Amino acid sequence: MEAGETSSSSRKSTSIPGTHPGDRFIRHVASSDLPIREVEPGRFIAELVEPASVWGKTWVRLRRALIGRPLRTAEAAHERIGKAKALAVFSSDALSSTAYATEEILRVLVLAGTAAYAFVQPIGLAIVLLLAIVVFSYRQTIRAYPHGGGTYIVTKDNLGIAPGLLAAGALLSDYVLTVAVSISAGVAAMTSAFPSLYPYRVELAVAAIVLLTVANLRGVRESATIFMLPTYAFIVSIGALILLGLASLAGLGPQPHPIHREVSPPSSPLTLFLILRAFASGSTALTGVEAIADGVPAFKEPQADNARTTLLAMGLILAFLFSGITFLSYHFRLAPNERETIVSQLARTLVDGSPFYYVVQAVTASILFLAANTAFADFPRLGYFLARDRFLPRQFRFQGDRLAFSTGILTLGALTILLVIARHASVAALIPLYAVGVFTAFTLSQTSMVVHWWRSAQGELRRVPWHSLVINAIGAVVTGIVTVVVIVTKFTHGAWIVILLIPALIGMMLAIHRHYVSVAEQLRISSEEARHWLRLLPRRSVAIVPIASLNRASLTALAYARVIADDVTAVHVATEPETGQTLQQRWREAGLTIPLVIVDSPYRELLGPLVAVIEKLHREKGGPLITVVIPEFVPVHWWERLLHTQTAWRLRRALAQIPDLAITMVPYHLRD
Amino acid sequence: MEAGETSSSSRKSTSIPGTHPGDRFIRHVASSDLPIREVEPGRFIAELVEPASVWGKTWVRLRRALIGRPLRTAEAAHERIGKAKALAVFSSDALSSTAYATEEILRVLVLAGTAAYAFVQPIGLAIVLLLAIVVFSYRQTIRAYPHGGGTYIVTKDNLGIAPGLLAAGALLSDYVLTVAVSISAGVAAMTSAFPSLYPYRVELAVAAIVLLTVANLRGVRESATIFMLPTYAFIVSIGALILLGLASLAGLGPQPHPIHREVSPPSSPLTLFLILRAFASGSTALTGVEAIADGVPAFKEPQADNARTTLLAMGLILAFLFSGITFLSYHFRLAPNERETIVSQLARTLVDGSPFYYVVQAVTASILFLAANTAFADFPRLGYFLARDRFLPRQFRFQGDRLAFSTGILTLGALTILLVIARHASVAALIPLYAVGVFTAFTLSQTSMVVHWWRSAQGELRRVPWHSLVINAIGAVVTGIVTVVVIVTKFTHGAWIVILLIPALIGMMLAIHRHYVSVAEQLRISSEEARHWLRLLPRRSVAIVPIASLNRASLTALAYARVIADDVTAVHVATEPETGQTLQQRWREAGLTIPLVIVDSPYRELLGPLVAVIEKLHREKGGPLITVVIPEFVPVHWWERLLHTQTAWRLRRALAQIPDLAITMVPYHLRD
Repeated sequence: MEAGETSSSSRKSTSIPGTHPGDRFIRHVASSDLPIREVEPGRFIAELVEPASVWGKTWVRLRRALIGRPLRTAEAAHERIGKAKALAVFSSDALSSTAYATEEILRVLVLAGTAAYAFVQPIGLAIVLLLAIVVFSYRQTIRAYPHGGGTYIVTKDNLGIAPGLLAAGALLSDYVLTVAVSISAGVAAMTSAFPSLYPYRVELAVAAIVLLTVANLRGVRESATIFMLPTYAFIVSIGALILLGLASLAGLGPQPHPIHREVSPPSSPLTLFLILRAFASGSTALTGVEAIADGVPAFKEPQADNARTTLLAMGLILAFLFSGITFLSYHFRLAPNERETIVSQLARTLVDGSPFYYVVQAVTASILFLAANTAFADFPRLGYFLARDRFLPRQFRFQGDRLAFSTGILTLGALTILLVIARHASVAALIPLYAVGVFTAFTLSQTSMVVHWWRSAQGELRRVPWHSLVINAIGAVVTGIVTVVVIVTKFTHGAWIVILLIPALIGMMLAIHRHYVSVAEQLRISSEEARHWLRLLPRRSVAIVPIASLNRASLTALAYARVIADDVTAVHVATEPETGQTLQQRWREAGLTIPLVIVDSPYRELLGPLVAVIEKLHREKGGPLITVVIPEFVPVHWWERLLHTQTAWRLRRALAQIPDLAITMVPYHLRD
Repeated sequence: MEAGETSSSSRKSTSIPGTHPGDRFIRHVASSDLPIREVEPGRFIAELVEPASVWGKTWVRLRRALIGRPLRTAEAAHERIGKAKALAVFSSDALSSTAYATEEILRVLVLAGTAAYAFVQPIGLAIVLLLAIVVFSYRQTIRAYPHGGGTYIVTKDNLGIAPGLLAAGALLSDYVLTVAVSISAGVAAMTSAFPSLYPYRVELAVAAIVLLTVANLRGVRESATIFMLPTYAFIVSIGALILLGLASLAGLGPQPHPIHREVSPPSSPLTLFLILRAFASGSTALTGVEAIADGVPAFKEPQADNARTTLLAMGLILAFLFSGITFLSYHFRLAPNERETIVSQLARTLVDGSPFYYVVQAVTASILFLAANTAFADFPRLGYFLARDRFLPRQFRFQGDRLAFSTGILTLGALTILLVIARHASVAALIPLYAVGVFTAFTLSQTSMVVHWWRSAQGELRRVPWHSLVINAIGAVVTGIVTVVVIVTKFTHGAWIVILLIPALIGMMLAIHRHYVSVAEQLRISSEEARHWLRLLPRRSVAIVPIASLNRASLTALAYARVIADDVTAVHVATEPETGQTLQQRWREAGLTIPLVIVDSPYRELLGPLVAVIEKLHREKGGPLITVVIPEFVPVHWWERLLHTQTAWRLRRALAQIPDLAITMVPYHLRD
């Protein structure tokens, strides 16, 4: 069992990256000049390690070409941004959802035939109302957490670990879906404009995700400027589209070109359940509203106020775009259709053929990719927080070459690719899994705030801030109800997957936590103890040397054993009858004084008997720590390893289970 | 790079199996009682190792159920058999080829239309003549090598390494084809009788191969009795069929039921090339004739005479069966057809509907499986000889639980399954690859004999045994010509694969040999040197201890280092700026006197800087052998390993390249 680990997982050492991909080649450094500079006696600074081997070089070049030169830890940059930029950075996720929300409402309603269409508007209104509530709730959160109110942290602070993990699980699953849905919707926008691409939508989606993964491994700074163009372009062009639509409805604007649409016959009755399901699908419009509350630290001073204003502005824009699209698609009787999005249909109705149509599709696609990109920032960040609190493997803490949280980014990339392939990059197929996480998180976050406000009054004689408390309470109740609605109405359509996944995630995180904590406990030591610890071992040591025959490698091991130990024993397992005699023979010839123990192995087993005899000697010799010295030779070429039986390594693994046994590999380097 | 190996590959130690699958569980032994018994001071005998873990137990039970209880090396059984049994044991391969040889001749001729049929008989005669020559040649071989004249050995002895390897390569490829062809033909015999099975022929063939593999891992003793029934049943029933056929032709026996056959129109002219190709296909009838010469040691005394008589008998039977089938298929105008074998057609013509028909098919199938089984004995044996001479990986020498050469058996099984799948278990598709190897081997073997006889006269004043020499010379020339014919006529039909494969094999074997020899050279040491070797290292040692933080694991390592070394240095790589200070801080608090070196790693690399600083200290401290003591903790559950970064192991691998560096893992066992 490869139980290998330095004490790195003790609480103190928060920092054994070592997942650094370059590491696998550093051995070659040995041959080149040493990449460390002495700054003061006993203190060095490491340079970048340049591998010497051809493979190493190529690999490093490849990585540099792909994700750029490594950055020093000190180079981590932090940018403060104003309201306008912040709106661009934090609202792409929320705004982009208008590209599919309406469509998903219609997709459900259409099941009950065109009659059901009438309900799209009340449902739309309900969602706008819901949006308002959530926005006002989060404005309270911002006031309470001016340094960033990430749902996980807020919930953990106020409701405790378990709810915190529930929030975390909900968010993690949700980020994966944000990427999958946004990318799929983005691709849908492209394929609507260029139907010939439709057959390749899965490939396109996967390509986009790979691109985002690499881009984020490069460590895309949230350089707001990049984000501003697509976001504002989207707001403006969709806004214009809506105004155009209203105008043409009022008979002022251009004549709409009604587009042919085949309406499939009603497949289910118009039940309350169906309407609720339509609402649940539409509620995906709210995904990403929390982003601003999470990102407060990025705002210019006065952070809180700026953030709250931006949030309000974002809410208004979102409400306008969403209700506009919904209103128009109703009046132009647009029908959802796998091959063309509602937005595309709307655009064609109003500005068919004109270049503006393509502008609309382009900006829609780009803001959707931007939305996916924000999840690539959020997922690894949450992963980092969870790893820091020891709920996820420590690997999630490591910062790669570019200071990005590589593990989180790669994990997210892999998961979303799988999901997109599994659901054929179809938004319709993904939506049922979506929003469960979002609303769970909303609910938990709002509930935490209620607790927060209540507690804030405790102790001191201050009065409870009822105003905020009530707003958050309403938020909590409403989002709670919506969560239930979402779960119930979407359950059979796929939500169950998420419902099962989240508890599994929580269980895993708890198990991981238990392990890390127990390890830390077991390894912790006080400076007091430490001082005495070193004197624990007696200055006398025992060594056992397993050998297969008398040769330079085994003799080197024996010689080494004599240096480090006062009591050396050689052990040989005879898997063929004669080898035992042969060895004893040579032992005598060479007149070796080291005792030799021979085990005949009639069943030709090697490791079993070897471990057994070592165990036996260990018990006899006693001593707190016995050393097994394993002769090992190191071939020159990798393929040569296939020609040897790696006995040293397998023995090493076999012995790993015996306590108080130090294992030493004494290498004998072969020439070519 | 996992350069792990005890000195096991030195010439002496012919015996590091260790591939014993049980090994992977032996670590659990430690907890149970020790499976070794002391027979005299310093000498033990190992019992069978019974794993303690649930997984171990299940795995072992599974293996026992499948291949039986392990056998002691001493239990290896050797059976001496008489002529009658020997015929059964050694001729199944040769005789069984009559089941397809004729068919393959016809398959080629039919391309030139029914007219070409006339040539089936002269071709048949030519092949019988060829058979006679080969039989008489091998009778000479037996005389010369009463202890078994395996082609590889005979060729290596007389012509040298390179030709020996050519023979080996030819045989190895040939054994694979023997299995593939025989199994496919056997399945064809079944599907001819039960056409409904035809769609499943590939599955059936694969199943049969798996069965043979397992059976041979069990170590099927060549318990002749098992072999006698099918072999003799085949001889008798096909013999009877032939007599019946001749009788009915003479108008004495039953009326033949001529069977409908669709003759496809001629697709190619009747050229000499085509006739030669037909001959080449038919020559597969000779495959396996060498078996008796290889197996002489298994005969009762007088071995040589018995073997030669058996070979002659076998030759006569083979000639009779082959020419009989050929003669009749010509006269009954049987046409080859993928769905029904010629033998089946012949049987139906003569005894349609009668149970005897099914008997014929059954015995045909069973002797063919038997033939495949002989290859399962030959391939691993040849593999063993090659590994012994260090031309194949040592793994081919290991004897598994049941004393069978597991590696060879599994390799053969895997290769043939691939081949059968690739060629859809179609004999017609496999034949072109066949016989190339056989005749190359024949030619080399006969040529070797010529050299052998010539040399046998050298030195002493004895006269050259011209009689034998001439026979073998004729054999060599004829088989040589046939080899060329086979290669040329079948080249484009698939023979080229084998032609390319064999040199590749030889190249590989030579590379392997070079490696093993050089390793042995480098490790060999005289008892004289050995005596002094031990005094090489000075009784002073230096240790370096990489630590991530001050905890029980790292302190245990430090304590150990102090025991084994006079000069200890601790090293820490700070992948996060603060860890360095923190550690120095604690170091002072604990008042540790061991010097601590800190390397700041601004690029968050761990191994690179660590290796660099170790290298640096190594250069400074000098000393023939420096020990790097790696603190390591051992978690309880396997999954926990995923939560740690295996730094100890990766460091171990990284350091493996630096010479004169002993690496010690000091374990710290965690509780649950």
